[in-house]
Amino acid sequence: MTEKRITIVEKILDANDRLANENRRRFDLAEVFSINLMASPGAGKTSFILATINALLDANVQIGVIEGDTAPVTLDSDKILAAGMPAVQINSGGNCHLDAVMIDSALDQLPLETLDLVIVENIGNLICPAAFYLGTHSNVLIASVPEGDDKPYKYPNIYRGLDVLIINKTDLLPYVDFDMDYFRQGVEMLNPGLKTFAVSCKTGEGLEDWLVWLKSKLPAR
Amino acid sequence: MTEKRITIVEKILDANDRLANENRRRFDLAEVFSINLMASPGAGKTSFILATINALLDANVQIGVIEGDTAPVTLDSDKILAAGMPAVQINSGGNCHLDAVMIDSALDQLPLETLDLVIVENIGNLICPAAFYLGTHSNVLIASVPEGDDKPYKYPNIYRGLDVLIINKTDLLPYVDFDMDYFRQGVEMLNPGLKTFAVSCKTGEGLEDWLVWLKSKLPAR
Repeated sequence: MTEKRITIVEKILDANDRLANENRRRFDLAEVFSINLMASPGAGKTSFILATINALLDANVQIGVIEGDTAPVTLDSDKILAAGMPAVQINSGGNCHLDAVMIDSALDQLPLETLDLVIVENIGNLICPAAFYLGTHSNVLIASVPEGDDKPYKYPNIYRGLDVLIINKTDLLPYVDFDMDYFRQGVEMLNPGLKTFAVSCKTGEGLEDWLVWLKSKLPAR
Repeated sequence: MTEKRITIVEKILDANDRLANENRRRFDLAEVFSINLMASPGAGKTSFILATINALLDANVQIGVIEGDTAPVTLDSDKILAAGMPAVQINSGGNCHLDAVMIDSALDQLPLETLDLVIVENIGNLICPAAFYLGTHSNVLIASVPEGDDKPYKYPNIYRGLDVLIINKTDLLPYVDFDMDYFRQGVEMLNPGLKTFAVSCKTGEGLEDWLVWLKSKLPAR
């Protein structure tokens, strides 16, 4: 009796996802944990990266940063370099998100084998970055208190794909109308049990818990 | 002697721009002033529209609002309706900007002939909305103080195409690091002489000058 075979045509990955998988392989080979950091403009992505770098200096954690911007400015990269870590600037040429091709090129310019962590600072945008897999291990979003408590309801797609949520600028809570329960309710609906850290990069409040989580993800050297 | 003729092939407008011109014709025929209101997520677009509606109630100015969102939520439209003005909700279906087709459809649902002003609240995004002409008379951007003073340097395209800039949430100036001179310098470089109003929708501070400008643009009835 001959075995019958059914040919299954699997979903063919598009060019971006193929290259993203290749990026992931590079991270894994170098034993580097990698983060895709997303947020609206001005939510505090660069401040959060700098706070993380500074808090981990004593632990000798080596962090490479890929900075995405829509314009050829190096404001953010300059800050990372000044903090003593390698940074690569990507100019998206007006594009509203980073993609796997850009990360592939940026990785060529980072000393991956000497790093423990790579943080990709995506373009400031709550919509398009959610649709492009970069190959990183973890999707992290920074929501900022002064943006308002209705953002999960209005930009649901980006919340659905998150591994970690940072609520930043908690120092401004006394001065703005932000209902934390309403905000968290919206998040819970889209992404039940999402790991969430409420922090203020300005005062340092709340960063400790984030750092404990992050250290648990870093390779043991 | 025969006249020589040279055939000049003019730039053929793309589909979006053709329809945008048609939208403009509809605004002009109805003698309605129209605004494309852009901003990052949470900069205060809806609050600004509500403050404008409320301030013009006594003057009997009729304002229609087209609300763009990436998700099927009516949070913002509900607020406009509660303020007594007609609103149309556009769900962009995950798209990161509004286009002329969406405005064309929305205009079918507004009582244009009874209105003085139409405000289009674009999707919260500093990148893609700048690339799509909707047919409105005026491009207005709301920059928000807690977003930081470096935004003109990082998102130059949207600033280049503006007719009016609103700096919102000035009530938060004492609590954040925002260098107004540095911000204005960046704007001036991209869009010299740009008409700018610094306001707080929360306290009402600075709105009077914006209203004077706006009234000067409305049709005399």
